[in-house]
Amino acid sequence: MIVVLRPGCSKEEIAHVEAHLKDLGFIPHMLYGVERTVIACIGDDRVTTKEHLEAVPGVERVMPVLAPYKLASREVSAKTTVMELGGPGPAVKPGTRTVPIGGEKLAVIAGPCSVEDRGMLLETAAAVKEAGAVALRAGAFKPRTSPYQFQGLAEEGLQYLAEAREQTGLPVITEVLTPADIKLVADYADCLQIGTRNMQNYLLLRACGESDRPVLLKRGMSATLEETLLAAEYILSGGNRNVLLCERGIRTFETHVRNTFALTAIPALKEKTHLPVLADPSHGTGVRRLVAPMTKAAVACGADGILIEVHPNPEKAKTDGQQTLDFREFAQLMRELKPLAEAVGRKL
Amino acid sequence: MIVVLRPGCSKEEIAHVEAHLKDLGFIPHMLYGVERTVIACIGDDRVTTKEHLEAVPGVERVMPVLAPYKLASREVSAKTTVMELGGPGPAVKPGTRTVPIGGEKLAVIAGPCSVEDRGMLLETAAAVKEAGAVALRAGAFKPRTSPYQFQGLAEEGLQYLAEAREQTGLPVITEVLTPADIKLVADYADCLQIGTRNMQNYLLLRACGESDRPVLLKRGMSATLEETLLAAEYILSGGNRNVLLCERGIRTFETHVRNTFALTAIPALKEKTHLPVLADPSHGTGVRRLVAPMTKAAVACGADGILIEVHPNPEKAKTDGQQTLDFREFAQLMRELKPLAEAVGRKL
Amino acid sequence: MIVVLRPGCSKEEIAHVEAHLKDLGFIPHMLYGVERTVIACIGDDRVTTKEHLEAVPGVERVMPVLAPYKLASREVSAKTTVMELGGPGPAVKPGTRTVPIGGEKLAVIAGPCSVEDRGMLLETAAAVKEAGAVALRAGAFKPRTSPYQFQGLAEEGLQYLAEAREQTGLPVITEVLTPADIKLVADYADCLQIGTRNMQNYLLLRACGESDRPVLLKRGMSATLEETLLAAEYILSGGNRNVLLCERGIRTFETHVRNTFALTAIPALKEKTHLPVLADPSHGTGVRRLVAPMTKAAVACGADGILIEVHPNPEKAKTDGQQTLDFREFAQLMRELKPLAEAVGRKL
Amino acid sequence: MIVVLRPGCSKEEIAHVEAHLKDLGFIPHMLYGVERTVIACIGDDRVTTKEHLEAVPGVERVMPVLAPYKLASREVSAKTTVMELGGPGPAVKPGTRTVPIGGEKLAVIAGPCSVEDRGMLLETAAAVKEAGAVALRAGAFKPRTSPYQFQGLAEEGLQYLAEAREQTGLPVITEVLTPADIKLVADYADCLQIGTRNMQNYLLLRACGESDRPVLLKRGMSATLEETLLAAEYILSGGNRNVLLCERGIRTFETHVRNTFALTAIPALKEKTHLPVLADPSHGTGVRRLVAPMTKAAVACGADGILIEVHPNPEKAKTDGQQTLDFREFAQLMRELKPLAEAVGRKL
Repeated sequence: MIVVLRPGCSKEEIAHVEAHLKDLGFIPHMLYGVERTVIACIGDDRVTTKEHLEAVPGVERVMPVLAPYKLASREVSAKTTVMELGGPGPAVKPGTRTVPIGGEKLAVIAGPCSVEDRGMLLETAAAVKEAGAVALRAGAFKPRTSPYQFQGLAEEGLQYLAEAREQTGLPVITEVLTPADIKLVADYADCLQIGTRNMQNYLLLRACGESDRPVLLKRGMSATLEETLLAAEYILSGGNRNVLLCERGIRTFETHVRNTFALTAIPALKEKTHLPVLADPSHGTGVRRLVAPMTKAAVACGADGILIEVHPNPEKAKTDGQQTLDFREFAQLMRELKPLAEAVGRKL
Repeated sequence: MIVVLRPGCSKEEIAHVEAHLKDLGFIPHMLYGVERTVIACIGDDRVTTKEHLEAVPGVERVMPVLAPYKLASREVSAKTTVMELGGPGPAVKPGTRTVPIGGEKLAVIAGPCSVEDRGMLLETAAAVKEAGAVALRAGAFKPRTSPYQFQGLAEEGLQYLAEAREQTGLPVITEVLTPADIKLVADYADCLQIGTRNMQNYLLLRACGESDRPVLLKRGMSATLEETLLAAEYILSGGNRNVLLCERGIRTFETHVRNTFALTAIPALKEKTHLPVLADPSHGTGVRRLVAPMTKAAVACGADGILIEVHPNPEKAKTDGQQTLDFREFAQLMRELKPLAEAVGRKL
Repeated sequence: MIVVLRPGCSKEEIAHVEAHLKDLGFIPHMLYGVERTVIACIGDDRVTTKEHLEAVPGVERVMPVLAPYKLASREVSAKTTVMELGGPGPAVKPGTRTVPIGGEKLAVIAGPCSVEDRGMLLETAAAVKEAGAVALRAGAFKPRTSPYQFQGLAEEGLQYLAEAREQTGLPVITEVLTPADIKLVADYADCLQIGTRNMQNYLLLRACGESDRPVLLKRGMSATLEETLLAAEYILSGGNRNVLLCERGIRTFETHVRNTFALTAIPALKEKTHLPVLADPSHGTGVRRLVAPMTKAAVACGADGILIEVHPNPEKAKTDGQQTLDFREFAQLMRELKPLAEAVGRKL
Repeated sequence: MIVVLRPGCSKEEIAHVEAHLKDLGFIPHMLYGVERTVIACIGDDRVTTKEHLEAVPGVERVMPVLAPYKLASREVSAKTTVMELGGPGPAVKPGTRTVPIGGEKLAVIAGPCSVEDRGMLLETAAAVKEAGAVALRAGAFKPRTSPYQFQGLAEEGLQYLAEAREQTGLPVITEVLTPADIKLVADYADCLQIGTRNMQNYLLLRACGESDRPVLLKRGMSATLEETLLAAEYILSGGNRNVLLCERGIRTFETHVRNTFALTAIPALKEKTHLPVLADPSHGTGVRRLVAPMTKAAVACGADGILIEVHPNPEKAKTDGQQTLDFREFAQLMRELKPLAEAVGRKL
């Protein structure tokens, strides 16, 4: 940790800061420059927050050296950790096959934004499987901006998801909104999704850390990579080592898209963490016509998997129709993706 | 709602969009221009999402006309609704006085970021009351970016808060993180705070809507005003009509501050809503030296109240020390605020 | 153009707005709803600014329907316009071949950020040509954030660029900073670059509109797509129909990169305009290790060309070393790009 | 300057970085930690860019310690430097009084966005003087987003400005867009304005550095404070020591305003620099009804002056009508501002 003092600090102030750092367990190296004093501290700067030290009189700025996350960091594993989605559970038939994410095979995960009814879900599950998807994703509990919008089918939706898995063999991913629902969702689903609005819902993260289901953690719409990895660290430090990260677009000044799809996060995260990194071009753009080119871009820069919203009839979708592909568009995209995935050393 | 079609739409596409709008209950007025067709729809466009219609083939853009919130809107009341903080409750002595927020008197709410122990809390409560604060705010449940940081004293902290209220008469505001804790927090506190990271935690909003305690709702760090008012609408539509809004800084490209204090939100919100609007210059800047000038700015542009972090010794604070005033600084600010509040027609 | 009036407008106000619109040449269609009046105007809303009408009492919001640019719009040409870089000129040998941009062949344009001296430029030009680049880009006039930084070699740099073209046959692209320099730069270079900081330097745009050299226009770091296309419109409306657009990263809250590479702009721009769209992953990321994956992403989502910074020894570069590839890295990237370009129907 | 090396750097890499730093004139202090090596460098880190060092293999991050600007910095003067606007010149009558900016008196500068004709300018100049403005600001050269919009009256507008000064005695501020126009503009005007789109037009900054007229430099719409101060440094280092800074709103995700008025920049800039700092609530909000409250906020947090757009009839204004006050609104605001200015120790 580097502590930069203000110009014109008194001797007493400098001594006070030095003593404060020693109290915190650091070994401070004092560097007296012409214009200002800088203190380089040896010690674990993960335990002390930058904000705390910036409250000490005389301190101008604090620059941490170590990343504040540990279990999520690349230092834990040079190889990307492969997660297995699926496997037995309360509502899961024994013998269900698992799907690896993070390995050579690119994982395409698809499904409607919401489970709207039994028929459309089963139909979509069959169609995305046919086109090559390896898992089904759909929402039973929907976080909606307005209280007057459709909020999801809740447990009824989970039951349809379990039925879709039984029919297709695809493992099921669905969002959980609150700690009290984790057990229920985990009974039906193979993977718990934490949405962008809940990325810093720390009690939910902690509670997912105690589940044995893998967790798909979406980046918050204004989260830095460090905050995203610290959110993962909440889950990992609770004992659940199966976390998948997902870039889904950030909020910027751009207005031609719903979100700015910040794809550089993919290779940047893969440098920093051993966790698999997915991309969600449906939310990442919010525009149906942009989903196909941006899926290709995400694969080209190294995503381990892709989440795509697919619906039998997007214009009738209860949620997110404007960014949803129909079956034909999805199948077409899967065909186009194949040579591209191969060009970057992936299998589809 | 205005629906703009793409240039070059076929007659069939136009007819399809028109029929779709009628199905949704709108009365579409077709305007055939030289370059493109525009449809002006009469009807309640709060029930239909922009996203939904943008999924219909031929539609380029949808522009809603009505604000999507109702109960929060200025149309409900031309005057700012005055909320009463305080009053009897399970852990509240009968006879406790209430504090109005939203009227002529500017409400200064102060306290430490976290309840760290009994002594510091009681000491701070006495000091902020002495300087003129009308309510005490401190966190017992702390949402922290890293799992390795101090997470708050939980119920023990709530007990100290109740004791501070008994000693000072100041009503108590404290954050609640999850629906399961609402009853516990409401037993001890006079007002439930929903923090910036939970502004779109809709189950928490709904659950607060069923409480009889006023709710202090902080703007999400990347929320638009519309999203903020829709979050309030979740609480209001649940039956709880006591919501206080709070601007606390948004996330932008600026690096010299922790957040960009978007003060224009204050007069802009006050135009749109009858709910009182507070400002939090501690989080809004993240820098101790900037708290006093930005408090003045917030009052000058019409805030109904101010939240300020105060601690006996900010450099020892467990959280947010870098943006926290000490007792002397807070008392000084209160003295300076008095003529300024009067200059904009407020009492302190 | 759609004009939304405030709720509670008086009859006089409504009549005033209607008259005002007629004065401006619009045919207003009045739509009287229960909650507010909306006016749909037939007419060319490119001539009137939204801002102007929002100044009229009673008007709440104005929503233009038509894009404000004409010559840049896709309506001018369904096919991407192919630009020819190169050809005779004052400092250009007759018989120099031209390079098409915007067609099937992906155009990779490379070179050092700055012309530092003759040797390094000629060496780099030879190396990038060898690896497959079709044009050379390097700066002789450098816009630098600080007045104390290296500002470029000016005309001496232009002479080396002309020499590099003579040796390699590669057409040359270089930045022009002010109208007074356009003639000088156009004498030496095949294409004028307008940098991100000058995207809204309208006198420079106008002056480039009178040049016969193609112009490479970089998106401003906080420009919307509409503003970018309007900047192009300045050049096009001046008579110069050869404009190449370039996405180079936008400014957001992200800190792990120098800019957020907003790649969705590529397919989105290609929908809106017939001009070729390039991508600059060097500035788009600001991080050397991220240049290769993001180049691939840009090609995958449809870029017509790529700008890459290459230097014989990036750690000795006078500018932008942190985002610059060395010869080996560039050649390696070109090899990896080939199958990827083919997978999206492009030749390299 | 602090140089953080990557974990796992080899001895050779570390030695290479150390040698490189010595070559650049630094005295490197090596700090070998358990997880990584950090090098603290004594020396003037203003001469070397962070970007340059980040290109050296083994370097993970570089953290400069010193601010990169010198002449603009607070270290030059503990007191705010008072600028004198006005004084003799080619088109200025001898004996014209000057107006100090940066002292106790709050400087309100007002005028129409554009000089539209002689009558409206003289009328506005008289009205704003009457209400208490100390200087007149209006544009003769207008930078407009679209080439099809009104671009200003050019020299004719400058002549009207000079006439308005003669009639009212108010010094005149007007924008200059390109180096070639500086002499012309300086002949007529008392102060050169550099607009937000030109804040990083370095040749224009340099050319203004050679003028003897004070320069009003607006913050770029996505500029950091450091970049803003470096832009001022261009002018100051050219020999012109009279620079006024101006916060005018930044570009963020907010949509209810044209820009996010980042008022915290005012006290933050005043900490860093001795130059006077103004605020422009007209552009800072883009909304007429928000101008008055945000003017008050700007004064409350310490602005040395305010720029306000005023027009005889905003709905007929050729530019920026939606954010322009009429005479009555401006006079009313001036009356309300008086007690507020006094409450923060300023005179009006």
